[in-house]
Parts: sequence; C-alpha cells; structure tokens
Amino acid sequence: MSAGIIQWLVVGGGVLAMLFVLYLVKTILRESPGNPKMQEISHAIRQGAMAFLNREFKTLSIFTVVVFIALAVFIEPHWWVAVSYLAGTVISALSGWLGMNIATSANARTANAAMTSWARGLKIAFSSGAVMGFCVVGLGLLGLAIIVFIWPDNSHIWLGFAFGSSSVALFLRAGGGIFTKSADVGADLVGKVEAGIPEDDPRNPAVIADNVGDNVGDVAGMGSDLFESYVSAIAASMVLGIASPMLGGVKAVYLPLILAAAGIVCSIIGALSVRPKELTGVSFEEQVEKAQAAMNMGVYVSNILMIIVSFFIIRAYTGSLALFWALISGLIAGFLISLATEYFTSPDRAPTKKIAAAAESGAAVLIIEGLSQGMMSTVMPVLLVVTGTVAAYIFGGLLGIGIAAMGMLINLGMLLAMDCYGPIADNAAGIAEMAGLGKDVRERCEALDAVGNTTAALGKGFAIASAALASLAWIATYFEVVTMEGGVASLMDVDVISGIMIGGMLTFVFSALAMMGVGTGGFAIVNEVRRQFREIKGLLAGEEGVKPDYIACVDIATKVALRSMIIPGVLVIVVPLLLGFTLGPKSVAGLLVGALLTGFLMAVMMANAGGAWDNAKKYIESGAFGGKGSIAHKAAVTGDTVGDPFKDTAGPSLNILIKLVGKVAVIFGPAFIVLIKLC
Amino acid sequence: MSAGIIQWLVVGGGVLAMLFVLYLVKTILRESPGNPKMQEISHAIRQGAMAFLNREFKTLSIFTVVVFIALAVFIEPHWWVAVSYLAGTVISALSGWLGMNIATSANARTANAAMTSWARGLKIAFSSGAVMGFCVVGLGLLGLAIIVFIWPDNSHIWLGFAFGSSSVALFLRAGGGIFTKSADVGADLVGKVEAGIPEDDPRNPAVIADNVGDNVGDVAGMGSDLFESYVSAIAASMVLGIASPMLGGVKAVYLPLILAAAGIVCSIIGALSVRPKELTGVSFEEQVEKAQAAMNMGVYVSNILMIIVSFFIIRAYTGSLALFWALISGLIAGFLISLATEYFTSPDRAPTKKIAAAAESGAAVLIIEGLSQGMMSTVMPVLLVVTGTVAAYIFGGLLGIGIAAMGMLINLGMLLAMDCYGPIADNAAGIAEMAGLGKDVRERCEALDAVGNTTAALGKGFAIASAALASLAWIATYFEVVTMEGGVASLMDVDVISGIMIGGMLTFVFSALAMMGVGTGGFAIVNEVRRQFREIKGLLAGEEGVKPDYIACVDIATKVALRSMIIPGVLVIVVPLLLGFTLGPKSVAGLLVGALLTGFLMAVMMANAGGAWDNAKKYIESGAFGGKGSIAHKAAVTGDTVGDPFKDTAGPSLNILIKLVGKVAVIFGPAFIVLIKLC
Repeated sequence: MSAGIIQWLVVGGGVLAMLFVLYLVKTILRESPGNPKMQEISHAIRQGAMAFLNREFKTLSIFTVVVFIALAVFIEPHWWVAVSYLAGTVISALSGWLGMNIATSANARTANAAMTSWARGLKIAFSSGAVMGFCVVGLGLLGLAIIVFIWPDNSHIWLGFAFGSSSVALFLRAGGGIFTKSADVGADLVGKVEAGIPEDDPRNPAVIADNVGDNVGDVAGMGSDLFESYVSAIAASMVLGIASPMLGGVKAVYLPLILAAAGIVCSIIGALSVRPKELTGVSFEEQVEKAQAAMNMGVYVSNILMIIVSFFIIRAYTGSLALFWALISGLIAGFLISLATEYFTSPDRAPTKKIAAAAESGAAVLIIEGLSQGMMSTVMPVLLVVTGTVAAYIFGGLLGIGIAAMGMLINLGMLLAMDCYGPIADNAAGIAEMAGLGKDVRERCEALDAVGNTTAALGKGFAIASAALASLAWIATYFEVVTMEGGVASLMDVDVISGIMIGGMLTFVFSALAMMGVGTGGFAIVNEVRRQFREIKGLLAGEEGVKPDYIACVDIATKVALRSMIIPGVLVIVVPLLLGFTLGPKSVAGLLVGALLTGFLMAVMMANAGGAWDNAKKYIESGAFGGKGSIAHKAAVTGDTVGDPFKDTAGPSLNILIKLVGKVAVIFGPAFIVLIKLC
Repeated sequence: MSAGIIQWLVVGGGVLAMLFVLYLVKTILRESPGNPKMQEISHAIRQGAMAFLNREFKTLSIFTVVVFIALAVFIEPHWWVAVSYLAGTVISALSGWLGMNIATSANARTANAAMTSWARGLKIAFSSGAVMGFCVVGLGLLGLAIIVFIWPDNSHIWLGFAFGSSSVALFLRAGGGIFTKSADVGADLVGKVEAGIPEDDPRNPAVIADNVGDNVGDVAGMGSDLFESYVSAIAASMVLGIASPMLGGVKAVYLPLILAAAGIVCSIIGALSVRPKELTGVSFEEQVEKAQAAMNMGVYVSNILMIIVSFFIIRAYTGSLALFWALISGLIAGFLISLATEYFTSPDRAPTKKIAAAAESGAAVLIIEGLSQGMMSTVMPVLLVVTGTVAAYIFGGLLGIGIAAMGMLINLGMLLAMDCYGPIADNAAGIAEMAGLGKDVRERCEALDAVGNTTAALGKGFAIASAALASLAWIATYFEVVTMEGGVASLMDVDVISGIMIGGMLTFVFSALAMMGVGTGGFAIVNEVRRQFREIKGLLAGEEGVKPDYIACVDIATKVALRSMIIPGVLVIVVPLLLGFTLGPKSVAGLLVGALLTGFLMAVMMANAGGAWDNAKKYIESGAFGGKGSIAHKAAVTGDTVGDPFKDTAGPSLNILIKLVGKVAVIFGPAFIVLIKLC
C-alpha cells in the first residue's frame, strides 16, 4: 500500500470516530431533558462544570505560554516542537470540553429516559460516556497523525504533541481530583454534620460543586488521563519502531497509526453492540447484572474483533507475528488487571468483606485492614505488568513494550465509554432524588448507578495499568533518544541509584501535596457554606425562591485546586531537569524508574483501598454488621472519607506524574547532553 | 603494625565492651529491686519476656537448622559458610537475650532508684540500655573478627555470619513487632473498652504481655536490627575494600575492624560522660530537658572523639583522608536524619501540631493529614542518604559507601544505649503506677519516660537510615560478588526493570502481612482475656489472691507472631532465589534496589506518621483542642491506634527486609551463576 492511501485510512479512522460522536450527540439530544425541576438542577451542574473548565483553561493557558516559550527557545528544531505542544494542549482540552459538555447535558436526559424505559436510560448514559471515549481516540489520533504527516522525519516534534496532552491531564486529572474531593468533603462536613440536612439537598451551596466534581474527576479527568496514555502509546511506539530492526523508517511510523485506526473501527462496532433489552418487574440485582452484561458485550465484541484484525494487519505489514503477540500481551494484561481490581474492591469478595468485618472493632482497625488489603492488591497488577512487559520484550524488543501499551489501549473508545458512563448514571440518580421522581424511576437510576460504580472502579485499575505501560514505553524511548556515557544506566552507578531514590520520593511528595490540597479546599468550602447559611436569609429554612450561590463554591474549590497544583506541577517538571543538569542523564533514567515503581504501587494501593472502603461502607449499609447507624457503619464512614482522596485525588494524580516525568525527560534529554558537553 | 598486634587490638576492643557490660550489670544489680509489689510486677514482666524469647528461639532453631543444611549443601566452601551462619545466629541471639535479661531486671530498680534520686533513676535506666548497646557492638565485633581471623581468605564465610544475625533480627524485630502490637491492641480493646478498667491494671490478663511487648520491640527488636546493620556495615566494607584500589587484600580487611574497635572505646567514654546532676524541686519540663541534655552529652563526646580518632587512624593506615571523608559523610547523614525525624514527630513542631489541629475535623481528616505529613517527611532522609552516598562514593568508590554505613554506626554502643533507655524508663513508670508509689516518684519516672519517647523516636529514624545505608552496602557487595553478563545491570534491561517492580511489590506484601498479623494477634488476645474474665472467678472483682494467667496471653501473642512470620519470612528468602534462577542475577540486582527504595520510603513514612499521631494525641491530652475526652481526642486516639502497627510493626520490619534480601542475594548469587551456566 502506498503511503498516501495509508494516510487517508488513518485520517479516515479519526474522522469516523468524530462522525460517530456526532451520531451519539444527536441520539442524546433527541431525548427530552425532563421536567423544569430536573432541567434546573442539570443546568446548575452544567454551569458549574463550565465555570470550572473556564478557570482551569485560563490558568492552563498561562502555563502553556510559559512552556511554549521554553520549548521554542531551548528545544531543537526551534518553534516546531513548541507548535506541536500547543496543538496537543488545545486538542486534548477540546476533547475534555466536548466530553464534559455532553456528560452534563445527558444526566437529566438519562433520568428522564429511565422514567419510561430502563433500557433507554442505560443507552443514553452509555452513549454520553461514548462521546468522551470517541472524542479522545478520534481527536487524539487525528491530531497526532496530522503532526506526523507534516513532519514525518522529526520524532521530537511528535513528542511535543504528547507533552501537550500531559499538561492538560495534569490540570484536569490532578487539579480536578483536588477539586472534586474538596467539594465532596466540604459539602458533607457542613451539610450533613453541622446543618443536619441530607446529602444532595439543594439548600446546600456546595451540592452543585459536589455533582460537578463527579464529572470533573471521572469524565474530564479520566478522559484527559487516558488521552495522554493513548497518545503516549502511539507516539512512543513510532519512535521505538524507527530504531527497531523489525520495522525501521516510515514503515515504523505507520504501523501504530494503522492499528489505532483499526481499533477505532472495532470500538465503534463494540459500542454499537451495547443493546440492553427492556426489563420490567425484575429485581434490583438483576437490573445491575443485565446492565453489566450489556456493556460487557461491547468489550468482548471489540476485543475479539481487534484480535482478529490486528492479526491480519500485523502479519501483512511486518511479515511476522512477533508484534501481534506483543500487542496481545498488553491486551491480556490490561484485561486481567481489571479483573484483579474487581476482586479487591467488589463487596462480594473476601477483601472488602474482611474490611467490613474489621469495622466492628472500630475505625482504626478498619483503616489498618484497608491499607493492608490495598498493599496486598499490588501483587497481581505488578506481576501482570511484569509478565506482559517481559513477554512483549521477548517478542518485539523495546518496540514490543510500546506495542503492548498500544494493545492495552487499542479499544480505548469502547472502554472509556464504559468508564465515563459511571458519573453520568451517578448524576442521573442524584437528579432523580433531588427532583423527587417516583420510587420506580429512582430505583432504576440507582441500578444504573450501581453498575457505574463497578465500571468506574475497573476503569481506575485500567487507567493505572495503562499509565504504567505508557510510562515504561517512555522510559524505553528515553533510552533511544538520549545517548548515555557507556550506553547504559547501570544500577552500580551511584548517580542512577540517587535518581531512583529521588524519583520514588517525588511520588510521595506529589501524593502528599495533592491530599493536603483536599484538606485546604475542603476547609475553604466549609467556610463558604457557613457564610452563605449565615448571610443568605431564609436559605436554611428552605424559603421559596431563596437560592444559594452555587457558583461561588465551584469557584472557591477551583481556585484552591489550581493553587494546590502549583508546587507539584513545578516539581514534576523542574526535578527531572535539575537532576539532568547536575547528576546527568543517567540519574534521570533512575528518576523515571523510581517514580514509576512507587507511583504504580501507590496508585494501585490507594485506588483499591479507597474503592474497598467505599464498598465496605455500602455493604454495611445494605444491612451487614448492624447496618446504617451502627458502630460498624460509623467506622466505615471514616474509612470511606479517608479513601476518597486516596482513590479520587492522590492515586489518579500519580498516573499523570509517572507519564509526565517521562515526557519531560525525553523532550529535554538531548538538552542535558548538550549542556553537559558544554560544561 | 603487624597483623598479630592488630588482631589483638580488635579482639581487645570487643573484650573491653564486654568488660564494660559486666561493670554496668554490677552497677544495676547493686540497686535494690524495690518493695515486694514492685518485685512481683517486675518478675511477671521478666517471666513473660523469657517465655517469649524461649518460644521465639525454639522456632528460630528449626529455621536455623533448615538454612544451615541449605547452606552446607549448596554454598561453597561447604560447611564453613553454614558454621559461620550458625555462629552469627547464636551470638546475635545471645546479645538479645542478655539485653532483655538486664532490661527486665532494671525496670523496678529504676523506679526504686527514682524514689530517692532522680539522677540515680536516670543512671540505672541508661546503664541498662547501655548493656544492650555494648553487648551488640562487643559481641558483634568479637564474633565477626574471630570468623575473619580464622578464614582470612574467604569473604563468603564472613557473610554467613551477617546472614545469621539477619535471621535473628527477622524473628525478634518483625516477629517481635507483631507480638508487641497484638498485646497492646488486645489489652486495650478488652481492658479499657469492654471491661472498663484502667490501662496497666493488674487484673487485665494481657497487661504483662503489653509490658513485655515494650521490651521485645524496643530492646530485643531494636538491638537485633542494629546488630545486623552493624555487622553488615563492617562485613560489607571488608568485602568492598578487598576489591578497592585504595586498600586491597589484608589491609582492607583490617581497617573496618580497627575502626569498629576504636568506635567501642569512644562509645564507652561517651557513655561514661552521661552524668546527670541531682535535681530537686524543678518542673517536669526541666527534668525532661536535663535528662535529654545528659544523654546528648554522651552522643557529642563519642562523636567528636570518633571524628578525631578516625582521622588519625585512616590517615596513618591509608595515607590519605579520602575514606575519612566517606566516614564523616555517613556520620553526618545519620545525625541530620535524626534531627529531621525529630522535626516531623515532635509535639512542639508544625507537622504534629497540624495533625493535632486536623483532629478537630474528625478521625478521617486526621488520618489523611498524618499520612500526608508522613509522606512529606521522606524528603530529608532521602536527600540526606543520597547526598551521603554520592559524597562517600566520590571519596571512596563503592568502598566509600560501606565506610559511610560504618560512619553512621560507629558509635552504635552509645546510640543504642540511648534508644534502649526508652522502654526501660517506660516500664519503670508503669511499675511506679501499678505499685502505687508516691506522686513525686511517679512524676520523676514519667519525666524519664517522656525523654525515652523522644530517644526512641530518634532511634527509629536512625535505625531506618542505617538499614538503608547497610542495604546499599549489600547492593554494592552484590555487584562485587556476582559477575553479570556484560558486567552491568542496566535500566534498559527488561529483567532489571522486572526485578525492580517485584522488589517494590515485595515490600508492600511484607508490610501488609505484618499489619494483618497484628490484627489476628489482637483478636486472639481479646478472646483469651474474655475467657479468663469469664472462667477465673473473682478476677474482675479484684478479689485478694486471684490472679490472671499472664503467661497464657504472652504465649498466644508469641504463637500468632511466629505463625504470621512464616509467609513473609519465606517470601523474603524465596523470592530473590526464584527470581535469580528464572530471570537471572541482573533481575536480583533490580529486586534489591526496588525493595530498598520502597522499603526505605515506607519505613520512614510509617515511623514518622506513627510517631506524629502518637505525639498529636499526647499534645491534645496536654490540653490543646479541648484536651482529654474531647472530640479531637477521640480522633487522635484513632490515629494513634493506626500509627501503632505503622511505627512498631510494619515500619521496623522493613529495615530487616531490605537488609535480608541483600544478604540472600550476596550469599546465593554465585549459585545463580553456576546454575545458569548449567542450564
């Protein structure tokens, strides 16, 4: 096939994804947004979400200008890496904006659809998740491919695009994580504890910020995180392919792009296979089960198709199946890690049940048990990543690692649709509650929400695993791009060991700062809510027409989130540079590995401990160990509150950290060398 | 100087330490053990401690036989490594037994001395701590030196001795950590919460186990941990010295031994400089301050002396000051890490105060704040270890790293005396309380105890730092002993990366299992205490002559501790072997580094978070944020309970892990090579 045809096919894949997005948006908007009350709530959430995004993007644009100038001045070829960086930033931000926009339009529509049909509710929520999913893969592939087609001979420019997506992920995922938990903690502390009003009560000025937070964290944050992983996997595979004896040159550049385009087609077919059948008069459990089954069908279809398609593509293109097996290694590792996550966080399994049982001995014992289970839960993910990586390496060398990361992410469109379905169903259930819809509708929405919790938990495990593989791919790329003295970074070298230690420490500092940000943000929200209750007359009494200032809370949480991002954001960029200029490029290689190791372990531990505490609480609320109001329940609430910043702030932020340091190292690596030679 | 004279000087140093121990023991035993009530309590603690040691040693002897046979069969030169291993085990166990024996004889004597004189109380407690300290350095140096003098040409045999000390440390530190917290948690849960009797009430069947636990964890556990670090630093320095161009051959072997012997002399002079002046009618704070000042004097004297002495020894012996600066790097790093620990755990500093303030928002916020502060507290220790290591490497290559570890541990006799003073003062205060001594005496004992808390916290920071440096020395030794394909373990190598990941995971699993052991043990104690309250008539009512079965509780906690040790103990030996035989020696190098990185970070985090929670509780109890009984206090109690297994079980166990994997790798390393060549 000529290069021209391949280029058209790749672009065609991206365009197809965006056409599919258009189709989905139409389906969603066709649905009625519900009664005025529902519309009002949905509108407030939407307004809050957009206020958050606007403020984030404002600060992001300052950040972008600074980095743009730094790249333009210091990195060869001048200007073009910077331009590519800018493109990556804008396109990733655009996909986040589109996804959030639709998610916040779809929540009330999901609740409304659920009034008449369970299947339609599921369909709307899933379609809206799919908008985020296919925006990410469509725009990600289009953007990167166009950059590559314009500058086919300069891989450094491609990396700029990936670096741009990292900046957005830093703001949306890490900043978003601080925002969402500040709002959550703040709303609960004053609302439930001080004022004694129920959760999701419209009188609480922070209630909208709390709902916005779900979208911020699990739609925009998750989307930008995986946008980065997706683009990273493709870009790293291209760079590694050029150096690989298996491919080399232009051939290496096209293979990842073709596979990504094929993945989009398979994902669309998968997404279209999610066809829930109408259910009436069945139990809550059965509703949950059927909803899960409907979405699983999409995953199976897209995975099986992709295996078949990639088999033929890779055999035809490379004349061997080696890279096919590398791809499969990543795909299987990702799938099994999701299962392991499910085991450690599901309320039906031993770990969460043990945590719930520990609640009877009080909060301290529950915390210890949760931390222990979280630590134990790192075993399978580590072994799977190791096995997947070793297998991929045996099949395809360093390129194999990149291809394995692609294997994990190849059906991202479909997988992300399932992940982002969660917060939309959650919001729909909230709206059904706040708008006082009938018991039937509420139950249906809650069943949809319950599945969403599972898919969101699986999504977290998957996001971490793919971040780890993407980070490994960057480490491999670093070794391709940066030539080191003696050609190796040996563990015998003190500089390397020092880098490893500092990389590990960086992870701890980053997590600590993120969690401290939640404390500061929560405190600020508490003060604001108290102020509104004091100053807005009739608000607490629930007088007709008196409304809290929702946007003020959104604004405060956003400000704190952005402020809390400054030090970690600077650290993650400055520490690798500083280390590179002082101890040299070898120690930076150590830094990447150290950060990957502790970042991966801590992210898995935090996500699983947090998820398990959450579900242990729900398990107790369902009647176990004395049920709601018991001593066990009180302890479980404490565990859940500890788990929130674990699983939604610090844990996910580490995904960004481990990928971002890799990119900083790869992009600035050649500059280390030049500078060291000059000194 | 001829080799003969040097040998006599080294042996002389060891003998001097043991003579000093004899002198100390005489001083202690001259003191009256107090009134019958005090003697009875002290006797019960002593009996419990011996019961614990007997059972530990019984299991340890089975373990030792198995390892002995494995070494005799698989490791060249057959038999002698195994014999040296046996010697290391027996001598380390002996020093633990001696230290515990005196510590449990000195507690009542300290309380009794405090009845007439504050200074004498301090002196008795410190002297008894010094027995542990000088047993460790004296027996450690004597044992290792004799092995070296018998087999001067086979370094593998020396390593067997260090490996033996590791086995004891595994049982006493990790097993002891599970024991002590099981007893603590169990005693509190039934005693304080269920039966409503005060802490340290003699009716509580677990109260003696709780007191035994203090000695087990902080005397025998700490002693065996540092015995291992001390022997490791000397042995690793000798092995590295042989390969170093700076020394080489016999010269290399003698330098570390001479320095250690000189360190003993300096430490004895330091210990003799601890001369508290009698105080009457001063405030509690002043008592604490003066006690601290008295012990600090000992540290300063021994450090300054050692700096001067080592300057002359190294210059005369090597003709250069390079290794002197390496030694100083380690000494300074150790000292500064202690200060950093003090900052993060002292109730007078910002971190602990912030944690205490967070208690006002409830247990969850307090836990998050404590974890965050614990993570932040890794910064200085990591930077100091890195700086110390890089400096030592610049001055003395790989040997410099060994010498730096020696520099940190050279005054161990004095430092350990101060560390082990803590639990003895703690026990003395407990006995003063239980025996109903006068208010004056109790206050004096409590002032002694308060200093002990600080010295114990500093000791933890120091133990971790020295374990990290000892572990680094083992990593360096591994590279000397094992020749790898291509001579390097590069980060570009997938096997190395896999090893790093698995090493990091091993740390998490080890910590999790240790903490879970505490849960199991605490639960078993709770059941036993309930049984005794039910079955022993008149016990709860406090009838005259009715006594609980204290030993039963000690026995149960010991059994659980030993059972909980099986899997972690097996893992830490089997995983490096398995990895070596499958992925090869390079991946074992990765494993060591991965385990060191996460082990060090987690140990620092856990020790400091645990210490800070403990002191935050004490700070609130002193009247801040509502004082005892307030909501903040309740939250602080939860934090303290979470912190207990952090700082006393999981954290310290990691010290053992990171050193033990290093030794397993060094000893079995050559076997990997042989086996791989065979395959």
